[in-house]
Amino acid sequence: MKISNLHELLIYELRDLYSAESQITKALPKLISKTSNEDLKTALQDHLEVTHNHLTRLDEIAEEIEFKSQLPVCVGIKGIITEGDKVVAEISDPATRDAAIISAAQRVEHYEIAGYGTAMSFANEMSHDYVADLLQQTLDEESDADKLLTSLAEGGLLSVGINSAAAKEETEEE
Amino acid sequence: MKISNLHELLIYELRDLYSAESQITKALPKLISKTSNEDLKTALQDHLEVTHNHLTRLDEIAEEIEFKSQLPVCVGIKGIITEGDKVVAEISDPATRDAAIISAAQRVEHYEIAGYGTAMSFANEMSHDYVADLLQQTLDEESDADKLLTSLAEGGLLSVGINSAAAKEETEEE
Repeated sequence: MKISNLHELLIYELRDLYSAESQITKALPKLISKTSNEDLKTALQDHLEVTHNHLTRLDEIAEEIEFKSQLPVCVGIKGIITEGDKVVAEISDPATRDAAIISAAQRVEHYEIAGYGTAMSFANEMSHDYVADLLQQTLDEESDADKLLTSLAEGGLLSVGINSAAAKEETEEE
Repeated sequence: MKISNLHELLIYELRDLYSAESQITKALPKLISKTSNEDLKTALQDHLEVTHNHLTRLDEIAEEIEFKSQLPVCVGIKGIITEGDKVVAEISDPATRDAAIISAAQRVEHYEIAGYGTAMSFANEMSHDYVADLLQQTLDEESDADKLLTSLAEGGLLSVGINSAAAKEETEEE
């Protein structure tokens, strides 16, 4: 794709985000199936539903700015998902695996925060108010998802892992 | 690498970040050479210096927690850099290319924000206060870099692109 102005760059960004969201809808169920902590599992399941809404929102944007004629694979999110899957597969301890799942999911969220933030600022600059508003809604939801993962990690999920590992070591020493 | 507890997961995260920072030190000079806007060029040059400091900080962390014996390639940042290089290479208009460079750089920043945030919370949870403090310093600098890029985009860089494109169209119409 040849890009020669900000409008075409916005189309590129929207395609990238559409591919990213599509990849995430396929990746999330695999992560959910490997999650042990119930709160984390619920948060990821909720986020899977929200991700489907984000795709619907991008479909609505496509009615204003046609971008879906070509949908190249988003290489950025592909790398992040590949990396996350690989590390999660290497961990057998449930609490440690949950921590790795949070780490992988937050990298995904931050990719999307950067992508939606950029697309939203391009849309704003070109006074595509309706599109900018839809992008802002998704951006806010991605930020909320990221904050929820941080609060789960800091609110006890990580300490459960450490305590269970310590308890296991003590049992082994007995 | 077999990961069986949070300490080993922290080592994995530190390796990932070391590889990411190393890749960024090689990718940034290429982006800088393609930047037209002087403020953006200065911001990226400053960030290249800061990135070298982040590697030094990770070296300091390695004196506390040895992690540098293996340094696998961070696949997440590799995908983001590959994607950014590709889109920037496709754009000949300088102002549009600057917008794409900001977009690529913000994806890089957000990968690092997620990575340092995770590593910092793991270090905190295990009371590695010195390591957590060093990671927090870098995290703050990555967040500042991201905010600076947003302010450059919203503070005129994008509108210059639109205005120059509009002016070009008008000239062509005459």
